[in-house]
Amino acid sequence: MDSLKCSWVMDYQQLLENIYQAILPYAKEGKQADYIPELAKVNPDQFGMCIHTIYGETAAIEQADTRFSIQSIAKVFSLAMCLSIKGDDLWKRVGKEPSGTAFNSLIQLEVEKGIPRNPFINSGAIVMADILLSNLANPEADFLNFVRAVAGNDTIDYNKEVAISERENGYLNAAIVNLLKYHGTIENDIEEVLHFYFMMCSIEMSCRELSLVFLAFANHRRKFDYAGFTLTSSQVKRMNAIMQTCGFYDEAGEFAYLVGLPGKSGVGGGIVAIYPLQYSVAVWSPRLNPKGNSVMGIKALELLTTETKESIF
Amino acid sequence: MDSLKCSWVMDYQQLLENIYQAILPYAKEGKQADYIPELAKVNPDQFGMCIHTIYGETAAIEQADTRFSIQSIAKVFSLAMCLSIKGDDLWKRVGKEPSGTAFNSLIQLEVEKGIPRNPFINSGAIVMADILLSNLANPEADFLNFVRAVAGNDTIDYNKEVAISERENGYLNAAIVNLLKYHGTIENDIEEVLHFYFMMCSIEMSCRELSLVFLAFANHRRKFDYAGFTLTSSQVKRMNAIMQTCGFYDEAGEFAYLVGLPGKSGVGGGIVAIYPLQYSVAVWSPRLNPKGNSVMGIKALELLTTETKESIF
Amino acid sequence: MDSLKCSWVMDYQQLLENIYQAILPYAKEGKQADYIPELAKVNPDQFGMCIHTIYGETAAIEQADTRFSIQSIAKVFSLAMCLSIKGDDLWKRVGKEPSGTAFNSLIQLEVEKGIPRNPFINSGAIVMADILLSNLANPEADFLNFVRAVAGNDTIDYNKEVAISERENGYLNAAIVNLLKYHGTIENDIEEVLHFYFMMCSIEMSCRELSLVFLAFANHRRKFDYAGFTLTSSQVKRMNAIMQTCGFYDEAGEFAYLVGLPGKSGVGGGIVAIYPLQYSVAVWSPRLNPKGNSVMGIKALELLTTETKESIF
Amino acid sequence: MDSLKCSWVMDYQQLLENIYQAILPYAKEGKQADYIPELAKVNPDQFGMCIHTIYGETAAIEQADTRFSIQSIAKVFSLAMCLSIKGDDLWKRVGKEPSGTAFNSLIQLEVEKGIPRNPFINSGAIVMADILLSNLANPEADFLNFVRAVAGNDTIDYNKEVAISERENGYLNAAIVNLLKYHGTIENDIEEVLHFYFMMCSIEMSCRELSLVFLAFANHRRKFDYAGFTLTSSQVKRMNAIMQTCGFYDEAGEFAYLVGLPGKSGVGGGIVAIYPLQYSVAVWSPRLNPKGNSVMGIKALELLTTETKESIF
Repeated sequence: MDSLKCSWVMDYQQLLENIYQAILPYAKEGKQADYIPELAKVNPDQFGMCIHTIYGETAAIEQADTRFSIQSIAKVFSLAMCLSIKGDDLWKRVGKEPSGTAFNSLIQLEVEKGIPRNPFINSGAIVMADILLSNLANPEADFLNFVRAVAGNDTIDYNKEVAISERENGYLNAAIVNLLKYHGTIENDIEEVLHFYFMMCSIEMSCRELSLVFLAFANHRRKFDYAGFTLTSSQVKRMNAIMQTCGFYDEAGEFAYLVGLPGKSGVGGGIVAIYPLQYSVAVWSPRLNPKGNSVMGIKALELLTTETKESIF
Repeated sequence: MDSLKCSWVMDYQQLLENIYQAILPYAKEGKQADYIPELAKVNPDQFGMCIHTIYGETAAIEQADTRFSIQSIAKVFSLAMCLSIKGDDLWKRVGKEPSGTAFNSLIQLEVEKGIPRNPFINSGAIVMADILLSNLANPEADFLNFVRAVAGNDTIDYNKEVAISERENGYLNAAIVNLLKYHGTIENDIEEVLHFYFMMCSIEMSCRELSLVFLAFANHRRKFDYAGFTLTSSQVKRMNAIMQTCGFYDEAGEFAYLVGLPGKSGVGGGIVAIYPLQYSVAVWSPRLNPKGNSVMGIKALELLTTETKESIF
Repeated sequence: MDSLKCSWVMDYQQLLENIYQAILPYAKEGKQADYIPELAKVNPDQFGMCIHTIYGETAAIEQADTRFSIQSIAKVFSLAMCLSIKGDDLWKRVGKEPSGTAFNSLIQLEVEKGIPRNPFINSGAIVMADILLSNLANPEADFLNFVRAVAGNDTIDYNKEVAISERENGYLNAAIVNLLKYHGTIENDIEEVLHFYFMMCSIEMSCRELSLVFLAFANHRRKFDYAGFTLTSSQVKRMNAIMQTCGFYDEAGEFAYLVGLPGKSGVGGGIVAIYPLQYSVAVWSPRLNPKGNSVMGIKALELLTTETKESIF
Repeated sequence: MDSLKCSWVMDYQQLLENIYQAILPYAKEGKQADYIPELAKVNPDQFGMCIHTIYGETAAIEQADTRFSIQSIAKVFSLAMCLSIKGDDLWKRVGKEPSGTAFNSLIQLEVEKGIPRNPFINSGAIVMADILLSNLANPEADFLNFVRAVAGNDTIDYNKEVAISERENGYLNAAIVNLLKYHGTIENDIEEVLHFYFMMCSIEMSCRELSLVFLAFANHRRKFDYAGFTLTSSQVKRMNAIMQTCGFYDEAGEFAYLVGLPGKSGVGGGIVAIYPLQYSVAVWSPRLNPKGNSVMGIKALELLTTETKESIF
C-alpha cells in the first residue's frame, strides 16, 4: 500500500469514485438546514467532490460543478483578509481557541465580555465583518474581488436572495451582534454589519472552484497575494492551524480524529479540507448531522484519508 | 533556507543551542506550580531539551538528562493503554472535543452529566484511571511496566512523595471524582481512583527519555506493541489528533497557531511534541504561564518550528 | 416603642423627615444610570419620598412631587395587565423564580430555551410586552389608560425622548429579544416589541403618584378593576409574592433581609414597596448602587421598617 | 369568610382535617428520596401536619407525632447558631440571594469562587457546618443541645445510621466541600465537615415538635435565647426573610406565589412554614415533586393560606 503514498501514481479519479460508492448508503442520512428558507429550497439529494493537488492533478465526481451556498466557509476568506490587514493585532479582537460549545452559543460570549473565542464561530465572524467594514473602501465589492482573485474566476458572486432570507430569520446572529455592540466590540452600525456578514456567507461556489481556491491555503510556499491582500508563508500555515482546531463547530475534535486534516465546513453542506503541501479537497452534500456538518461530506473525507493513509498526523 | 527542510543535513545540536540562546531572556518569566509542595521544591531555573528523529538522530542540551515530574504528560500513556483495551468503545466514557474552558472546570462536567470533554482534562484522565483500575490485574505495576517498555528503560519510576503530596492537596480533583461518581461514571472506589491517578502523574522522566518514548507516537508506521498493549497505525495517528486539539489545556489553539505540532504539556514544566514521521521533541522548564504551560518550553518549540520551517500545517 | 405599631398614632410626616436626616450622609454615594443619555441628564442630587396608608393617611418629603422615569417599576403594571388577560396561563410563557444572576443575563435565558425566569428581569418583561401587543387593541394607549386609571390621574404620560434614547442604546435588550425570537417565544415584530417595551419604561410619575397607585397592590381586599382590567384578591397577593422574590434584580435577598417588604425598583432611581394591608411607599433618588438600586432609596426603606418595627416577617 | 381572619375563632383542628381530605387525591403523587438507602426505607404513605399559634392554640392530624428525618430543615438551626456567633460577619462567608439553580449546583459555586449564594443550598450549609466546627467546643453535642433547648425536649436525637448512609452516598456533597476547600473557604478537615453536616441533617423530629420549635422564629417579640445562643428581634425577622427567598431550593418563587409564607423544606418530606406573629406549621409526607419538595406538604400549605385567606402578602 505504500505506493498510495506517492501522489504522482495515485489515481485520484478512481479513488473519488470508489469513495462515492462506499458512502452511498449514507445518502439519506441527516437533515438539510431549513432555518433559512432559501437554503431549504436546495435539492438535498446532491453530492459533489473535487480534489486538486499542488502538482496540478485534479479529479472530480458527480455535482462537482454545481454551485452551492458556501456559508461559513466564507469565514476563511474573511480571516485571510483580516489577517492581511491587521496582522497579529487581529487577536486583540478575537481569540483563537476552540469554542467547546455549540457554534452559536451566547454564553461563552457573555462570560468572556464580548471577545469571541475564535474567528469561525458566528460571533468571531461578525467581529471580522465589522473589521472589514471599517477597513475596506467598498466592503462588498472588495470582498468579492478578493475571492474572485484567489479563484481566478470572475463569475463567482453573492446570492442576494439567500443573504436577505438569512437576515430576515437571523435572530440568533442579531442577538450576537447586539451583545457584541453592548460590550463595545463592534464599531459599525449593527444592520450594516449583519447585512455584510450575510452577504459574505451567501457566496456560491462549486466544489471544483472551492477546491482550487483552497490550494492557496494548502501551499504556503506559493506567494499569497490577491487583489492587494498578502499573507506571509507563516500566516498561511497559521490559518491552517486555526482551521484544524476551530473549523468544525463543536466537532473539531471528532473531525481531527476521523479525518486528520485542517478544514472548514458550512451549513450549506460544503466542506473544504487541506493536506498542506499535498492537496486541497472540497466536498458537498446538503444533509447535515446534528452538529451542522455534512454527513456524506465527513464520511467522504474520512475515507479519503483512510484510503490514502495520509493525514497530517 | 530550503536545505533546512532536509533532516539529513540539519544540525540539530546547533539548532537547539541557538534556540536556547534565543529564549534565555524569558528564563525568569512565569511561575512554578506551587499547589503541590513537592513540586514547589524543584529548582525553577532549569531547562532541558532533547529531540529524536525517526532516522535515529538525536540532540540534547542543558538539563536534558534531569528527571522531572511528567504530570499530565502521563495522560498520553493512559490514553494509549485505554485505547488498546477498549478501542473506540472508550469514547462512550469520554469525549474527544477540546474543552474550551480551564483544564479543571467542573462546569462543563456538570452540564454534560459526567462525560468529560476529552481524555486530557483532569476529569477525562480520572475516568481513564478508573478504566485502567477495572481492567488491569496490577494497575500500578502494569502502568509502570508499559511506560518502561515503551521507553526501553527499567529505571523509570513513580515518585511516591509527589503522589502523596498531590493527593493531600488535590481538593479540585477530589471534587471532580466525587462529581463523576455522583453521575455514575466511576466504577471503583474514589480514593483508589485518586491514588492511582496521582501515582501515574508522579512518574519522573528526563527530556531525553520522554523524547525517545514519544517516537513511538511520532512514527505510526512502526509496530506499536509494548508490554502486551498494542495500537494500530490508525490509532497512533488518532492519538496525535487528540494531542493536537486537546493537549494544551485552554491553550490548544494558541499552541497550534504558534508551534503547529501535536503535543502534551504537564504542570511539572514538561512539554512533548511530535512531528509525525519526522521527530519527537521534549522540553522542560518549571516556570509556567498563566494557562499552566512552560514559558520557555513553548518559546523553544515555537522557535523550533519557525527555524526549521516545519510544522504539520 | 410599641405605640409605633399602631398606624393611627404614627406621625408619618415626622418619621419621613427623621429618615431623610439620617440618610443624608449617603447623598453622594452611588452613580446615576448613564447608559441612557436622556436619563443621564437628570440632576442626581434629588430625593423624594411619599407614603400612603390604607387608612387614608399620607406623608411626603422633599421632591416627592417631581416626576421621574419609572423604568422597571412599569413591569408591575405590565404584570397586572398580563395576569388579568391570561390568568395562570401566563406562567407558560414566563417563570416566577428569582433569577440568581444579573438582571440582564442572557446565559440563563439560553440555558432555559427562551423561557425567562420571571416577569421582572428584562427578558420576562419583554415577553410581557409581546403578550400585550398581541392582546391589546391599541397597546400604547391601553397601557397608559390602565396606569392612569389606577392612579386616578390623566396627566401621567410617556416620555418619548427617553424611550427613543433607550432604544438607540438598548443593545442588550435587542440581544435579548432576538434570542427570544430565535427560541420562538416572541409573536410580534422585534422592533415593535422593543418600541413598546421602552415606551412603557419611559412613563414618568412622582413618588406621591407611585405611592398612591401602589395602594391598589397593598390592599388586596379592595376590588381591583381599572380600565377593564381586573384581578382577584388572590392575584393581587400573588403579585406581591413576585415583587418580594424577584423585585430587586440580583439583590432580592438583600432587600428582603434589610427591608422585608415586597417591592420593585427601577434604574431611574425609584423604588416602591408595599406593606400589605398597611401602606405603600415610594422613594426616589437617582444614584444607584452596583446592583442598580437607588442607594438612598434602599437606606430610607431599611430605616422605615426598622423604625416602625414593621415588616412582613 | 372574614371571620376566618380572626385566629381566636378559627377551628384549626377542623381546618386541618378538611385540608387532609382535600389533598388525599395527591397521596400517591411524587417519589420518595431514594438516594440515601436509609431514607428509602421509610413508608412513603404517611402524612402528618401540626400547627401552633402564638396564642397557644394547637391542632394536629394523622402522623403528626411520627418522627422523620428533618434533613435540610436543620439548616435553619445552623443559621440561627451561626448568626448568633458571627452576626452580620456571617455574610462574608455566604450570600443571602436566592440561588436560581438546582439546590446542588456546583456551577454557581465555581463561578462565584467558593462563596455560596445562600445558607440553605448545600454549599452554604456546608460552610455553616465549617463555621460551627471552628466555633463550638463540642459541635455535635452543642448543636443537639441547641435544638433540644429550642424544642424544650431532650429526647430529640441524631439518627446515626442515616448520617452514615448519607455520607457513604454523598458524592455530590463531597464534590462541593472539596471545591470549597480548593477555593480556601473551608477551615476544617473535609471528612469532619461532611460528618458533622450529615449528622445535623439526620436529626429526627415529628411535625408537632417542628411546629412547636418554629414558634421561636414566628414570634420575633419573644426573647430568643437557647442554650446560650441569642438572636435579636431583628435577626429573627431576617431569618424569616431568608427562609422566604431561599427556603425551597429552586421553587422559592413558586412557594411564595402559592403559599406566601417563609419556610424551609427537607428531602425527608418535611416542610415548616411561619406566619410571623400568628403561627408556625409543620407538614410531612415523604413523596417529593421533581424539585425535591413534598407534594402533599405544598398542597396542604397552599390550602391552608387559601382557606384562611392569610399570608404575608
